[in-house]
Amino acid sequence: MSLLVRGGTVVTAERSFRADVLCNGDIIAAVGPGIEPPAGCEIIDAGGLLVMPGGIDPHTHMELPFMGTTASDDFFTGTAAGIAGGTTSIIDFVIPPPRTSLIEAWHEWRGKSEKAAGDYGFHVAVTWWSDQVAAEMATLTREHGVNSFKHFMAYKGALMVDDGVLLHSIGRALELGAICNVHAENGDAVAHLQQKLLAMGITGPEGHALSRPPEVEGEAANRVIAIARLLGAPIYIVHVSTEEATAAIARARATGQRVYGEVLAQHLVIDESVYRHPDWATAAAHVMSPPFRAKKHQDALWAGLVSGQLQTTATDHCCFCAPQKAAGRDDFTRIPNGTGGIEDRMSILWHHGVTTGRITPNEFVRITSTNTAQIFNVYPRKGALEPGADADLVLWDPSASRTISATTHHQNVDFNVYEGMQATGLARHTICRGRLVWADGDLRAVRGAGRYVERPCFPPAIQALAVRNTLGRAAPVNRGTVPA
Amino acid sequence: MSLLVRGGTVVTAERSFRADVLCNGDIIAAVGPGIEPPAGCEIIDAGGLLVMPGGIDPHTHMELPFMGTTASDDFFTGTAAGIAGGTTSIIDFVIPPPRTSLIEAWHEWRGKSEKAAGDYGFHVAVTWWSDQVAAEMATLTREHGVNSFKHFMAYKGALMVDDGVLLHSIGRALELGAICNVHAENGDAVAHLQQKLLAMGITGPEGHALSRPPEVEGEAANRVIAIARLLGAPIYIVHVSTEEATAAIARARATGQRVYGEVLAQHLVIDESVYRHPDWATAAAHVMSPPFRAKKHQDALWAGLVSGQLQTTATDHCCFCAPQKAAGRDDFTRIPNGTGGIEDRMSILWHHGVTTGRITPNEFVRITSTNTAQIFNVYPRKGALEPGADADLVLWDPSASRTISATTHHQNVDFNVYEGMQATGLARHTICRGRLVWADGDLRAVRGAGRYVERPCFPPAIQALAVRNTLGRAAPVNRGTVPA
Amino acid sequence: MSLLVRGGTVVTAERSFRADVLCNGDIIAAVGPGIEPPAGCEIIDAGGLLVMPGGIDPHTHMELPFMGTTASDDFFTGTAAGIAGGTTSIIDFVIPPPRTSLIEAWHEWRGKSEKAAGDYGFHVAVTWWSDQVAAEMATLTREHGVNSFKHFMAYKGALMVDDGVLLHSIGRALELGAICNVHAENGDAVAHLQQKLLAMGITGPEGHALSRPPEVEGEAANRVIAIARLLGAPIYIVHVSTEEATAAIARARATGQRVYGEVLAQHLVIDESVYRHPDWATAAAHVMSPPFRAKKHQDALWAGLVSGQLQTTATDHCCFCAPQKAAGRDDFTRIPNGTGGIEDRMSILWHHGVTTGRITPNEFVRITSTNTAQIFNVYPRKGALEPGADADLVLWDPSASRTISATTHHQNVDFNVYEGMQATGLARHTICRGRLVWADGDLRAVRGAGRYVERPCFPPAIQALAVRNTLGRAAPVNRGTVPA
Amino acid sequence: MSLLVRGGTVVTAERSFRADVLCNGDIIAAVGPGIEPPAGCEIIDAGGLLVMPGGIDPHTHMELPFMGTTASDDFFTGTAAGIAGGTTSIIDFVIPPPRTSLIEAWHEWRGKSEKAAGDYGFHVAVTWWSDQVAAEMATLTREHGVNSFKHFMAYKGALMVDDGVLLHSIGRALELGAICNVHAENGDAVAHLQQKLLAMGITGPEGHALSRPPEVEGEAANRVIAIARLLGAPIYIVHVSTEEATAAIARARATGQRVYGEVLAQHLVIDESVYRHPDWATAAAHVMSPPFRAKKHQDALWAGLVSGQLQTTATDHCCFCAPQKAAGRDDFTRIPNGTGGIEDRMSILWHHGVTTGRITPNEFVRITSTNTAQIFNVYPRKGALEPGADADLVLWDPSASRTISATTHHQNVDFNVYEGMQATGLARHTICRGRLVWADGDLRAVRGAGRYVERPCFPPAIQALAVRNTLGRAAPVNRGTVPA
Repeated sequence: MSLLVRGGTVVTAERSFRADVLCNGDIIAAVGPGIEPPAGCEIIDAGGLLVMPGGIDPHTHMELPFMGTTASDDFFTGTAAGIAGGTTSIIDFVIPPPRTSLIEAWHEWRGKSEKAAGDYGFHVAVTWWSDQVAAEMATLTREHGVNSFKHFMAYKGALMVDDGVLLHSIGRALELGAICNVHAENGDAVAHLQQKLLAMGITGPEGHALSRPPEVEGEAANRVIAIARLLGAPIYIVHVSTEEATAAIARARATGQRVYGEVLAQHLVIDESVYRHPDWATAAAHVMSPPFRAKKHQDALWAGLVSGQLQTTATDHCCFCAPQKAAGRDDFTRIPNGTGGIEDRMSILWHHGVTTGRITPNEFVRITSTNTAQIFNVYPRKGALEPGADADLVLWDPSASRTISATTHHQNVDFNVYEGMQATGLARHTICRGRLVWADGDLRAVRGAGRYVERPCFPPAIQALAVRNTLGRAAPVNRGTVPA
Repeated sequence: MSLLVRGGTVVTAERSFRADVLCNGDIIAAVGPGIEPPAGCEIIDAGGLLVMPGGIDPHTHMELPFMGTTASDDFFTGTAAGIAGGTTSIIDFVIPPPRTSLIEAWHEWRGKSEKAAGDYGFHVAVTWWSDQVAAEMATLTREHGVNSFKHFMAYKGALMVDDGVLLHSIGRALELGAICNVHAENGDAVAHLQQKLLAMGITGPEGHALSRPPEVEGEAANRVIAIARLLGAPIYIVHVSTEEATAAIARARATGQRVYGEVLAQHLVIDESVYRHPDWATAAAHVMSPPFRAKKHQDALWAGLVSGQLQTTATDHCCFCAPQKAAGRDDFTRIPNGTGGIEDRMSILWHHGVTTGRITPNEFVRITSTNTAQIFNVYPRKGALEPGADADLVLWDPSASRTISATTHHQNVDFNVYEGMQATGLARHTICRGRLVWADGDLRAVRGAGRYVERPCFPPAIQALAVRNTLGRAAPVNRGTVPA
Repeated sequence: MSLLVRGGTVVTAERSFRADVLCNGDIIAAVGPGIEPPAGCEIIDAGGLLVMPGGIDPHTHMELPFMGTTASDDFFTGTAAGIAGGTTSIIDFVIPPPRTSLIEAWHEWRGKSEKAAGDYGFHVAVTWWSDQVAAEMATLTREHGVNSFKHFMAYKGALMVDDGVLLHSIGRALELGAICNVHAENGDAVAHLQQKLLAMGITGPEGHALSRPPEVEGEAANRVIAIARLLGAPIYIVHVSTEEATAAIARARATGQRVYGEVLAQHLVIDESVYRHPDWATAAAHVMSPPFRAKKHQDALWAGLVSGQLQTTATDHCCFCAPQKAAGRDDFTRIPNGTGGIEDRMSILWHHGVTTGRITPNEFVRITSTNTAQIFNVYPRKGALEPGADADLVLWDPSASRTISATTHHQNVDFNVYEGMQATGLARHTICRGRLVWADGDLRAVRGAGRYVERPCFPPAIQALAVRNTLGRAAPVNRGTVPA
Repeated sequence: MSLLVRGGTVVTAERSFRADVLCNGDIIAAVGPGIEPPAGCEIIDAGGLLVMPGGIDPHTHMELPFMGTTASDDFFTGTAAGIAGGTTSIIDFVIPPPRTSLIEAWHEWRGKSEKAAGDYGFHVAVTWWSDQVAAEMATLTREHGVNSFKHFMAYKGALMVDDGVLLHSIGRALELGAICNVHAENGDAVAHLQQKLLAMGITGPEGHALSRPPEVEGEAANRVIAIARLLGAPIYIVHVSTEEATAAIARARATGQRVYGEVLAQHLVIDESVYRHPDWATAAAHVMSPPFRAKKHQDALWAGLVSGQLQTTATDHCCFCAPQKAAGRDDFTRIPNGTGGIEDRMSILWHHGVTTGRITPNEFVRITSTNTAQIFNVYPRKGALEPGADADLVLWDPSASRTISATTHHQNVDFNVYEGMQATGLARHTICRGRLVWADGDLRAVRGAGRYVERPCFPPAIQALAVRNTLGRAAPVNRGTVPA
């Protein structure tokens, strides 16, 4: 089965050029001008379109059990919605509760993910520490294609780990050649502020933002960066939402430390005013952690992406419908945390990034797929558009415009944080592993068509760190015999 | 009983001028030119000398029980040594172990301190949290003249508190109008690195420094500053020893936050090479926390003092003799942490600060006494040289020189970290509460002559913060009835 | 002639205390509780009032000939208005055009200033360079009580000097023990942008702000700081109005460099929106350089003052009435640059600084008089409240409120940038050299009562720099004979 | 004519993979596993070698007339030496003296460059401003393949331009879609310090470094970045050698500004101590601008490269032999400025970068060729290894070692700044446009084989800026009729 994308402009992280793209089965077979279609080849006209690697969303939570309910998009509906927006792969999270097996949790999530329409992988959360955890981390990297582990510095009393666990886990991951990622918010501070706010009678969604001010994130980012530095380990900070965390990352990088930062599309364009919306449900629908911020933070995030100090974009896609959100109507701390967005990330980034001149189309590709693929070591299988790569493509219409709405989106949730926004730039067609699954408005996502993508350890950056750590190892002073 | 200091140049934090100083009893009665001595007045010739407020050391640990032994300088010998160096007051630390009463500990320390030769006060450590602690903090501020509380972010398993305790305690202190000070080192990280180093066979004093790299301090400083910021509280960081912590303080101050930093004279002139000294005892004698650092940190500390981003100088005076240090001969983690220095702080600062042109004589006064007195709210009783102030004076010879040595110092310890250094600038005479107690080499310190100095709460800076916090208080959104 | 201020609270830069203040002639004779009035002594009831050193405005331009017209407040009306607001001294500027004598200009300004009602001194501008200028700088310092020189990096083709002149002049001032101050805006950039904006058809006052964006100031501040650093000289930057310049100052100070920054009260509370006012005259009335800025800069300036990175407050008082401003009605570059404000500086700082909890009353004194007096070396004659100081006092009512308006102010100008603002905190009475010249709304300023204040060179900070520069002097490598 | 590189590991900026590389004529025809050699194809065994894009040195000065002499490497010898080290292309500089034609100078340089053995392009210096210059810039971009212009902020009285010229030239280049690069040192400051040092009797090479301290570069970098920012233009700073300039670049990038920085290999490993060498000739041989720096700057430069804040590496290759350097034996300001290094850049970067674990092999490619090709818009013709690209390759032996020496190098100069250094990693073979010109120690560079590479304007980053500038354009306030 072959498919020829003809007449488009290929855009990669490095450059743009006129070329056809031939997919053979689920692999890209050729990229070049005037490719002759093999017999029986399906042909897609890409005239006027940009042909780019399918988007990778490195941060999603499909059907996550959380805060007493379960996220409403499952692996099928969520990945299908992504496909409608040009995203062809995700990295989701296996989250074993404290005192439970990482391996068992991985199996559980693998079970749920069988229905996915697009490709996927898993970060596995470390929520506690023991010899068993250390051993299971090794097994996951060696036998299950996991090369990244997640840590929560927030959610005290639930998923939060303290610095001792971080030190163990980040050190262990480094030995294994894996990278750690971190939800950076100081959970003690959040819990303290939550209690204080409730005591002051602030029970509405505005309390959510007030309980997680920017310092809470800036502090935790700075802390985990310091911990990683002590260990000579790389670190990846998820959903960076503040000037403070961006600055912490930049400070560390300015010393040569390998720190990576991820930005959610939502944080680039939505600000904290949503929490003061007079409609409780609207305000509650925006409850996620970290929360939306004052506008100045958006400038810092954009600049971080342009300068390369922040590398990836994601969504933290984790949907809850109004009845689910209503669990917190008397107490903001009980509103399930999460918003959707996998379907709109690419459009939001194009509209607010490329059409404004903030970023180039090549930089768009770099931050929507290439950097993610490289950091999590699935490049060039993913995130590249070249022979041999997986045939995950988005055919992008750079000038078409649409209005985003929950009434038309494919996400399984009753709310869209971008409701009513006009966005220029949209996925005209999406191809997953050589199959046309989104065709000009027709969603043909196939339940179960997605594959689990194994990710090997020791990408080049970690190899370099290993060399550096070995050369820099401390040695004792030889003092001969020390006096008794 | 009166005493006239005649013919000197008075140097205060604001200016220098020729004036005599008349002490009446334990108070300064007059400052001005050509004061006529009352009948029976003792007269001290200050010709060629600078007459300054006696030094205040805001950070000492006399006869502290610590790491299985007790600091060798007691309240008498330690304060007497201070007097020989021009320091007339100290603020020591009451350190109740976790789960014990703060009040009882305060009484215990007050008992030990009765023998002091110079004036003193206490910071009281909060090493755990409970309603009792909160109540005792109030009692200490209201009945016992305590306006500052200390916290250890280091010493895991012993004195260390976590962020939850910090949040409670700093918030409580703010309510009471008191200020918190903090030993900023990430105790989890230190413990982790200690274990790792021991496992690598690094058991000598060099391991001490390796287990507490600059990031350990920079991280903790940044963290506690963030916590204080969340609460709208002031914060005072003791023994800032790194560029990283200095930068964290400067970043916070650049937003208007009220953060203070203290520098130990030792850290300004001694560097980390001491831990690789071939003689174990010499290396061990320098074991203190934070440890000595690479030279570049010294520049940062000096610049912090010159620019006013760091405000005070201290010693963390906590002496242990060689036999005490020997407890850690097989394991650096068992070497009692601490060095002396109360006697030499003023000389070291003059020699390396004033004679090099880094700071002015007025700035010398500001960082050796005035700022401390203002931050801890005993100004102008202490730290000022004006009528009504306590008659604590040092008559400083700016050009005389001496060689520092354990063989000649008055500290009750067998080692001096400045051994062999030439220092220009010394205390020619010292006057405590109107009494000449150091007279050109003759130490006349009186056991028990020191008084406990009560320090009231709510200095102007905290009053201003209280206004600011009240005006900035969050309010709930009024949404009418929230839907069920 | 004596005057007793009775029953007030004295507030200095260091502390607040209940005390009476006795003035004898033009000098403070005593400060203390319960002073008995001498015979014939005038008594002022200061009950409920704060007694503070009179304000010093280090940056005014009375009757300045500028841009084809002359500033409307002369030395009498301007200083009288200051007195009504609690400001008792000014430092104005002697500005000789390029190629003219500094000494002659100084004499000219001294002539104009004879009518002043309050005390005054002069910074002298260096607008060109030659041996004559170097010689006249020496004469000014030695014979005319000048210890500060001003430089314009802006006003290309008029007053602007290039880096070569700055290097000569700052170096020369250092030799003389004087300090340089600088108007930091890149004049080349301003001229370039002015031409570009006019060519785009932007001729209104909004063009003024657009031609002087924050980078223009940040760049120049950074540049002159670097130049001063190369020379080992102190530097004082006038009217710092941006985050960028504040950051440049903070960066330099963080290395220990002695850099000072001055803030105008106007920049703390007025923002750039004024230039888009639909009324041309209102917009034009706000034209000054640097212009008003986006609100975020105000936060940076406040924080700079709180943290001590910026030290002084001023007004750049330079009034032009509507008919004068109208000269630029077709071309914003012809609008005379300048606004008034000497009368309101103290109120604005109290209202927005003290009543909001940003600064303490002591810090208010420090930034309205004490720091200025110390930097320009007239302390404690000015800026202090102690026996021997000049009897310049303001009796401040901290809770009274007034509405600022051009219809009621005493400034000789038809506009007030604070028009309609309510301000809490006002000068109830003002005393100049022992004479009550503002008595609860009655302005009794005396034409010609002000005195010229000679300012000696070599304040302590410059003495310290001189030591430092001498010790750090470079030496040649001795290579014996160098090969031919 | 075809050539097959067989059995190596291809390393690009994005990844490493086993592949053969087939060159057909001067173009890469295929990259992939197991390529069959066409008939008559030359085959090179790359077993154990890394096959990378040939290095591009974006900063050389072949046979430059400068300071009264001419650089000793001409376009043939210099490019040939580059080939021996793995560098296959250069971008040299056309430098017309002030008041002369840019076009004529370009023709002159084109004439000299005909003898080059490797490919080349030219940055053209703007050393003065006039309508003619503006017009010639357009001609150069449209007819002569120039897309970059150079400016000297140093060399007062010779090549230096002031801010007014920078504003004109950078603005003009932006209109044309070209990028400006800048030698950032404050020429006024250098001239001032030179005179001061000579007056102090410091005439030796140590004076060179003392006359150009780090602030001189940091200031100029900050200034030109601010100027570019005002114009919305990109800017490229050549030979960044200091922490200060690196920080200025990072600050700007943290706001999203497009600033690029180039590092010389020399500055990464050689420090300022060379100027105090007892042998005058050795010290003089190191005279270049900016000079070598204290070691801490090296860390900043490496970190800048690792973090992506600095993008390219170069050499500023500009050789002068001992007799030429001797012109300054009585006066360091007359020592011709320049050092060699084109032959050793790649080895130095590999040895100190890759073998130490600082950078990955991919990052090595990125900073030795790919980034340069992208910034100067010749990618993927240069800087890429893929079909269609120019067949410029280096076959790198990552583990072979050599000792660098002037006695064995191919540069036409009698000195090597790396003399005696052991370097691991060397060019085993080099291929230029499909021809093997360096074959395991045999240099077969062909005089005149190099081609001039035309570089088009408007790379993607400048296109994006053009969009941004258009959208952000200021507009006048509509006030109706302004009052007369």
